[in-house]
Amino acid sequence: MSQRKLHFGAFLYTPGNHSAGWRHPDAVPRTDMQFHYYVEMTRTAERGRLDTIFFQDTAAVGGSGALDGTSAYRPTQGRQVWLEPATVIAALAAVTSHIGLIATATTTYNEPYNVARRYATVDHISGGRAGWNLVTSQVEDEAGNFGLEKHVDHAVRYERASEFYDVVAGLWDSWEDDAFLYDKESGQYYDTSKLHFLRHRGAHFSVRGPLNVARSPQGRPVVAQAGSSDVGRELAARSADLVFTAQTVVRDGQAFCRDLRARAERYGRRPDDIKILPGLMPIVGRTDAEAQEKLETLQSLMDDRLAMAALARLCGDLDIYQYDPDGPLPPLPPSNAAKARQALIVELAKDNNLTIRQVARYLGTTQGHRLLVGSPKTVADSLEEWLLAGAADGFNLLFPYFPAPLNDFVDLVVPELQRRGIFRTEYEGRTLRENLGVPIPPNRFTRQGRG
Amino acid sequence: MSQRKLHFGAFLYTPGNHSAGWRHPDAVPRTDMQFHYYVEMTRTAERGRLDTIFFQDTAAVGGSGALDGTSAYRPTQGRQVWLEPATVIAALAAVTSHIGLIATATTTYNEPYNVARRYATVDHISGGRAGWNLVTSQVEDEAGNFGLEKHVDHAVRYERASEFYDVVAGLWDSWEDDAFLYDKESGQYYDTSKLHFLRHRGAHFSVRGPLNVARSPQGRPVVAQAGSSDVGRELAARSADLVFTAQTVVRDGQAFCRDLRARAERYGRRPDDIKILPGLMPIVGRTDAEAQEKLETLQSLMDDRLAMAALARLCGDLDIYQYDPDGPLPPLPPSNAAKARQALIVELAKDNNLTIRQVARYLGTTQGHRLLVGSPKTVADSLEEWLLAGAADGFNLLFPYFPAPLNDFVDLVVPELQRRGIFRTEYEGRTLRENLGVPIPPNRFTRQGRG
Repeated sequence: MSQRKLHFGAFLYTPGNHSAGWRHPDAVPRTDMQFHYYVEMTRTAERGRLDTIFFQDTAAVGGSGALDGTSAYRPTQGRQVWLEPATVIAALAAVTSHIGLIATATTTYNEPYNVARRYATVDHISGGRAGWNLVTSQVEDEAGNFGLEKHVDHAVRYERASEFYDVVAGLWDSWEDDAFLYDKESGQYYDTSKLHFLRHRGAHFSVRGPLNVARSPQGRPVVAQAGSSDVGRELAARSADLVFTAQTVVRDGQAFCRDLRARAERYGRRPDDIKILPGLMPIVGRTDAEAQEKLETLQSLMDDRLAMAALARLCGDLDIYQYDPDGPLPPLPPSNAAKARQALIVELAKDNNLTIRQVARYLGTTQGHRLLVGSPKTVADSLEEWLLAGAADGFNLLFPYFPAPLNDFVDLVVPELQRRGIFRTEYEGRTLRENLGVPIPPNRFTRQGRG
Repeated sequence: MSQRKLHFGAFLYTPGNHSAGWRHPDAVPRTDMQFHYYVEMTRTAERGRLDTIFFQDTAAVGGSGALDGTSAYRPTQGRQVWLEPATVIAALAAVTSHIGLIATATTTYNEPYNVARRYATVDHISGGRAGWNLVTSQVEDEAGNFGLEKHVDHAVRYERASEFYDVVAGLWDSWEDDAFLYDKESGQYYDTSKLHFLRHRGAHFSVRGPLNVARSPQGRPVVAQAGSSDVGRELAARSADLVFTAQTVVRDGQAFCRDLRARAERYGRRPDDIKILPGLMPIVGRTDAEAQEKLETLQSLMDDRLAMAALARLCGDLDIYQYDPDGPLPPLPPSNAAKARQALIVELAKDNNLTIRQVARYLGTTQGHRLLVGSPKTVADSLEEWLLAGAADGFNLLFPYFPAPLNDFVDLVVPELQRRGIFRTEYEGRTLRENLGVPIPPNRFTRQGRG
């Protein structure tokens, strides 16, 4: 058996994951709306042989509910607008050739038939490189754009998400691989015995099928998930090929991987059929000192009010602004949004005795993900440690701004990982599944897998 | 004032609009799923300086309701699967530079916030070449994929469509053109006074906004429509930049144009702000005789049973198969699907004394649109006649199969039209609106137009 190798996603969160990153002199903030920057970033990631790019999504302007109302939080900086990611990956498919293309689509405010079509289409256009990041909507702001007075409850969202997944996966099996004959002589366009009706009837959806897209190169597009609550883990264990998560220390990473793989086995899956990528923001310099300087430049740009806004979003109904910013984090009320992320932050503050301001600045830097600052050797040492310890299959890379920090990772860290034999020098296959090393799920109507 | 010029759409209905076109020796039936063919076809249309390509859409396998049930109609030939068109135009935007990109999305089974985002995104990616063909779902088959037992009633569909349009157009006005400052020094990302909340509350939708996509290059993507019933015309008169229609004789084209422009004026629009393109299938040869031979080859491939299936779809609850195919067309029950198309067919049959079989074969050839067979001169004469008579602003071109008939039009007819000065030799502008000659609607929040 060959040596374990790292897998990487590049999280293209424009204009950057650091709340003040866009103000860096090298930053190109207009990445939010100008497609040619997306092309450039994706080609850089492809040049670095990363497995995939990844787009988060929210169906609202962040904080717009508050903006429309009375809150003191006015998000006048940073990410307000971005290109709709399922549309963007289709366009990127046309101008790239190897890298995976994963975009988020919510199960809360979409119809499964539409989502199944769209990702199957990107899978065809890209020759098998599409991925769907399945989420439930976390942000209250979205509800107002879809006719709801209030955000849907966490448990109901996951129930709907789980059924949504079943419908989408079922629709992807509508046609067998070789259903289409295109036989001009006989006039037979397809083999009717290779067309299958889903006839799903459930609590949330009733969908007959079949899908009007032929089975795609990957059989099914890769399914990614980021839910880390108990119900989120169950859904991921049952359905995800790829899991984005947020552990910041090896011990937690190991525990998460063990837990998720054990759950996956209970669903009859092989533990290795699910790849786990914690988020990681690398700040890379040619030396540790240079990397540290880069971080300091970034931190000097951060406005504490914006950092507080990031924290306020995780505090639910609690108005964090009424507390002394240099005092300890108060107990937070149960979240109907990002349950697991809130728990990670509370734990982080406790373990490190952080003040409210310090927690806020940490969130404003990495959105709660791990920060790793250093030379290529320092960074590679840590990545290798996590891989060998079974704490991760790789990392979903966050960048403080674009495009320089992405270039740094590709140009400085990737060669070091390749020298150590823990990262590919060429793509292994043509599809994202092949590169990730995750199998094509068997077609439910024939029980036949491929690949 | 310069001479009136023709406008053209290329209707990329794969594998072809002729029901047996895919069986032609030159046809490439796999165009239905292989993106590189879409690229090739679009580049051909762009080489011909056509205004736009156009994709129809249905959120179901055609006839799948019948397939799943008891009907004798088994659509084992022709169009069963295709790539989701809003996704496809995004990908085509990345590999073309001038041609318009119009894709259909139904107002019956989508959410307006999602549609507004997607088309605004394509407008950004393409630099101002996106168009949305707004339809209500006509096909019963779709209902089963979206949780409904029965198809939504025609009147309710249009009521929803009209409100859907208002929401989408309003969301496109969320941000003023110059809202984004990206001011690194002050930290001001955007000007809050240039962000607008829609706060729509209506019978079908309640949408707060704002859209999380900046105002796009065209201000609003082009809106196309094809409804020709009375409510369809009202909606088009109020909201469409471009209308696809189906008149087959000059007199009817003139009447339709007069009617629609008069309605548009009642909504305070200039008559010329709405461009009207009847469907047209050109079969072009170097000579009239060669064109006629091409048609005969095509017709020899047509299976009457498939032609009958096309007719059956327009007959609603009436089982057309119980009538003598060589007898006259019986009275058809009122349609809940394509009302206006049904009326055109009934009139055509009456005017020309056609038998059921003849009507079916006509439908199987052009889906009810006009067939125009001849040399470049013959074809150009007719197009010029319609233009000068005010019966059309141009045509939406249907092709029996791909890619040869599209190449024929571009290589044989376009040069003839250019010689006559009734078609552009270079694109006039960078955006689809500029090329069509339709204005950017003023932003409702500022009443300022552009361009």
